Amino acid sequence: MRGAEALIRTLVASGVDTCFMNPGTSEMHFVASLDAVPEMRGVLCLFEGVATGAADGYARMAGTPASVLLHLGPGLGNGLANLHNARKGAVPVVNIVGDHATTHQQYDSQLQSDIETVARNVSAWISRPASTAAIAPAAAAAVAAAMGLPGQVATLILPADLSWGAGGEPAPPVAATAPRLIDADRVDEVARILCSGEPAALFLGGRTLRERGLRAVARIAAATGVQLLAETFPARLERGGGLPEPTRLAYLAEFAELQLQPLRHLVLVDAKAPVSFFAYPGRASYLVPDTCSVHDLAGAVDDVEAALDALADAIGTGDGSTRGAPAVTARPDRPTGALTAQAVAAALGSLLPEGAIVSDEAQTSGIFNPAATAGSPRHTWLCLTGGAIGQGLPVATGAAIAAPGRRVVSLQADGSAMYTIQALWTQAREGLDVTTVIYNNRSYSILNMELQRVGGEPGGAKAASMLDLHHPDLDFVSLARGMGVPATRAQTAEQFVHQLERSFSEPGPSLIEAIVPPLL
Amino acid sequence: MRGAEALIRTLVASGVDTCFMNPGTSEMHFVASLDAVPEMRGVLCLFEGVATGAADGYARMAGTPASVLLHLGPGLGNGLANLHNARKGAVPVVNIVGDHATTHQQYDSQLQSDIETVARNVSAWISRPASTAAIAPAAAAAVAAAMGLPGQVATLILPADLSWGAGGEPAPPVAATAPRLIDADRVDEVARILCSGEPAALFLGGRTLRERGLRAVARIAAATGVQLLAETFPARLERGGGLPEPTRLAYLAEFAELQLQPLRHLVLVDAKAPVSFFAYPGRASYLVPDTCSVHDLAGAVDDVEAALDALADAIGTGDGSTRGAPAVTARPDRPTGALTAQAVAAALGSLLPEGAIVSDEAQTSGIFNPAATAGSPRHTWLCLTGGAIGQGLPVATGAAIAAPGRRVVSLQADGSAMYTIQALWTQAREGLDVTTVIYNNRSYSILNMELQRVGGEPGGAKAASMLDLHHPDLDFVSLARGMGVPATRAQTAEQFVHQLERSFSEPGPSLIEAIVPPLL
Repeated sequence: MRGAEALIRTLVASGVDTCFMNPGTSEMHFVASLDAVPEMRGVLCLFEGVATGAADGYARMAGTPASVLLHLGPGLGNGLANLHNARKGAVPVVNIVGDHATTHQQYDSQLQSDIETVARNVSAWISRPASTAAIAPAAAAAVAAAMGLPGQVATLILPADLSWGAGGEPAPPVAATAPRLIDADRVDEVARILCSGEPAALFLGGRTLRERGLRAVARIAAATGVQLLAETFPARLERGGGLPEPTRLAYLAEFAELQLQPLRHLVLVDAKAPVSFFAYPGRASYLVPDTCSVHDLAGAVDDVEAALDALADAIGTGDGSTRGAPAVTARPDRPTGALTAQAVAAALGSLLPEGAIVSDEAQTSGIFNPAATAGSPRHTWLCLTGGAIGQGLPVATGAAIAAPGRRVVSLQADGSAMYTIQALWTQAREGLDVTTVIYNNRSYSILNMELQRVGGEPGGAKAASMLDLHHPDLDFVSLARGMGVPATRAQTAEQFVHQLERSFSEPGPSLIEAIVPPLL
Repeated sequence: MRGAEALIRTLVASGVDTCFMNPGTSEMHFVASLDAVPEMRGVLCLFEGVATGAADGYARMAGTPASVLLHLGPGLGNGLANLHNARKGAVPVVNIVGDHATTHQQYDSQLQSDIETVARNVSAWISRPASTAAIAPAAAAAVAAAMGLPGQVATLILPADLSWGAGGEPAPPVAATAPRLIDADRVDEVARILCSGEPAALFLGGRTLRERGLRAVARIAAATGVQLLAETFPARLERGGGLPEPTRLAYLAEFAELQLQPLRHLVLVDAKAPVSFFAYPGRASYLVPDTCSVHDLAGAVDDVEAALDALADAIGTGDGSTRGAPAVTARPDRPTGALTAQAVAAALGSLLPEGAIVSDEAQTSGIFNPAATAGSPRHTWLCLTGGAIGQGLPVATGAAIAAPGRRVVSLQADGSAMYTIQALWTQAREGLDVTTVIYNNRSYSILNMELQRVGGEPGGAKAASMLDLHHPDLDFVSLARGMGVPATRAQTAEQFVHQLERSFSEPGPSLIEAIVPPLL
C-alpha cells in the first residue's frame, strides 16, 4: 500500500476523518488515495488560511482534530496565522505539509524551503518520517500529540516520494496523554482562600467554560460569593439557556484593570494571569494589581473539570440553585429604525436559534452582542483566540462541518473578513448552514481607536487613510455572490431582522451585509 | 524624534519611498509618522500577501526596493509566500515587521510569536534593533542588504516601544556591495568553449534578461551559433520590439530534457543548472544530460552584464545584425469565434501596447502567450519566480505603482487568483492602469495534469473533486465589482478583443473574465 493511503487509513483509525485541503503536486498521491478510503472526507479550500482556520473550528466543536493538507513551505506560510490562533486556543490540529521528494530537496528548486523552521512557531510537535513505512506510525503519533493536553498543532511533513512509495501499512491509534489529576491539598488550599471572605475571583479559561465546568463554578460562587471571570477570548464558551455565565475580562486594559482592582485573590483555572493584548506607552502590560495574590488551581495539562468539581465539593456547596444563581435574562425586542451595532445585537438576541454556534470576529462592532444574547437559548460562542485576524469565516466553516444540524452564525468585521473571504466558497460548495453577518463600517475601526490609545500624534490625512476602507467601498453582497453564496444588504433594523429570520429558516449559507456606522 | 519617524526618513534618504502595508496596533506609530514625511507613499493592502507581492513587483520595475509593513508574526506568515517568491527571484524587499514592545514580550500575550524564526526562511538578513537610536542605522543597513547582490529580503523587526520612543535620528544611506567583476581568464575559457563548434548554449537568468544582456548574447549567438536558453520563470524579461529573445526552458521536465539533450556545453549566466520543478516517480530531477558539461560564466553576485559584454568582445563579434539575428515576428490577427486559451493569446499578441508590463500567472492556459506576443512592441514580462501561487495580482499592483504610464496586463489563472484576490481593491483605490485577465476554466487544471504525471491511480470521484472549481462556479465579475474594479465577462473571441481594447484605452483598473475550456 502506498504511504499516502496508509496515512489516510491511520488517520481514520485514530478518529480523524476530515481533511481540509489545498493540495499541490507534491500532495497528489494523498489526493489520489482519497477514493480508496471512503471514511475520509476531503474538503477543498481555495486558500490555506481557510483550511487551517476550518480545522480549528472543526476541532472546537467535534472534540477530535481534523487534518489539514498543505503544499510545501509557502502553503504552510499561508496557513500560519490560523495555526497561530489554534495554538493560542490550545485546539488540536493534525497539520500535514507535503514536501518535495527526498531525492529532490538537494537541488533547491523553486518551491524548496525549510518547512521545519516555518512550522516551529506554531507546532509543539513536528515529525518528518524517514521512510514510507514510518509514515503511518508518525500519523498515529501526530493525532496523539495533537490531542494531548494542552491541545496543539502537530505537524507531519510528508515527502512526496515516501507518500507515493509502496510498503505502507496502517498503524493502530496511539493514546493521548491523560489529563493530570491535581492533588487534594491544592484543592483544599484554594477552598480555604475562597472561603476566607476576602474579595476573590476564579479566572476561567480553556476547558472550564463548557457545561460541566460552568455548573461547578456556579456552585462555588453560590456558596462563597466569589466572582467568576473568564478569559477575554475563549476558544469555546457555552452560553444561554440558563447556564451560569462568567464575566469576560475586558479587551481594553483600562477596563480590565477596573475589573481586577477590587480583588485580593485571583485563582487561575486553565488560564494565565491576565496581561494586556498590546503594550501602550506608560501602561503596565501585567494587569493584576499588586494587592492581589494569584493562585493556580489547575492548568492546561490538568483535569480542570475534575478539579472544579473537587473544589465545589470541598467547599461543600449545595446545588447552586439559590445564592448567586444567574438571573434569567430577558431576550431583547426586535429592533426598529436605524441599523447600528446595537440594533444588530438586539436582532441577534431576539432571534438566535437553539443550538446556534457563533463564530465571533466582529471586533469593535460586536461589543454589544454578549449582553444581548445572554438570554438566548443554549448556544456556543467561539472567539478569536490568538488575535490573528481572518479566523472567523474559516472557523465558522469548520464548525458547520463538525456540527451538522446546528445553525452557525459568523459575525464578521469588514476589515478582518477580507483576510480569508475565500471561506465563503467552501461554505457554498459544502452547503453549510452558515449565516454570515458582515459589519460594514468601512474602516479598520479598531485601529482608529488603537491609534489614539498608543499616544500617536493626532493622525494626519495619510495616517487616517491607512485605516480607512472607503474608496472604493467594499461590496460584500457582490463578493459573496461571486463565490456562490446568496447575499443581501441591510440598511435598516427592520431589513436586518427580516433578512436574519430568512437566513435562519433556509438551509445552506447566506450573507447579510449590515451597513453600520463606526462606533469610534 | 520618534524611532518610527527616523525610520521613515532613513528609508526615504536611502531611496525607498513606497511602503505597502497592512498595519496593526504595534505599527501605529509608523502609520502616525507618515504625515511627517511627505516623500513616503503608503499603500494600504487588505491582506499581507498583497503587500509583499506588490513590493516584489515594485522592485522588479523600479530597480529599488519598496518597503512593506507587517503586523507581528501572523502578519509575516500571511506575507510569507510572496516573500518566498521574491527570495527565489532575487528581488530586493525591505520587510518591516512590527513586534510587541520589548517590555511586553515576556508575557506571551495572544499575538506573541517568534518572528525571527518565521522570517529566517525568506530573509538573508534579519535585524532587531535594541534601542530607538539603533532603528535608523538598521534601516539603512536593511536597504543595503536588500539591494546587494543577489537581491534579497531584508527583515527589520521593530518593537513597538522603540518605534514610539524618542531619540531617533535619521541615518545616512549605506552603500550596497558592488557587483563582483569576473576575471578575464574565465571569460576566455568560456569564449574558447563557445567557439569550439561543439553544440553549446548559454543558460540565462536573473539580470541577463534585460536589454543590455540580451544585446550582448545576441552578438555572441550571431558569431558562434550557440543557443540562447533562458530560465523557465524569470523575474523580469524584456521582450518585443525586435529585441533578441532566448528560448525559455520548458516547465515540463520531459520537454526541458528534449531541449537540453543535444548540448555538449551549458554555460550558466546568473542561473543555476536546470532541475525539474517537482520530482516524479522514476524520473531524474537534474535535467542536464551526462553528455553535457556545465560551466559558470558569472553568478548571482557578479557583474553579469559586464561579463556578457566582455564575452562578446572576446569572441570578437560584430554588431549582431547578421547571422542569428532574430527574425521579425508578425503580430497575430485578431481572433474570432470560440474563446480559447489560443484566442486569448492571439488577442494579446495583436493588441499588447508599447511599454506594457505583463504579470504572468496564467499557468496552463497561458502557454500560448509567449509565442503570440513575440512580435509585439517592446514590453516587460514578469514571471512566477518561486512557484508559490498568488503572486500575479500583487506583482501587477506593485509594478503599476513603480511604472506609472505603462499599461500592466495581469494574466491570471482562476485557481491562483483566489489566493490574493484582495489586490484588486488596492488597484481600484490607487487608480492603477491594470488590465486583469482571468482564465476561468473552473479547475485547478495544472493539478489534473500533475495528478497524471505523478503516476497516481486514475483519480476517482473524490480526487477529481479536489481539483475541480465548479459547484459553485467562481464569478470573477462579481468579485471584482465587490472591490470596486469594473469587470466584464467574455465568452467569444470577439467579445474578448473588444473588452481588451476598451480596457487598454481607459485609465484605471478593469478585469475581464475569459471563460475558456480547460486545455487538459
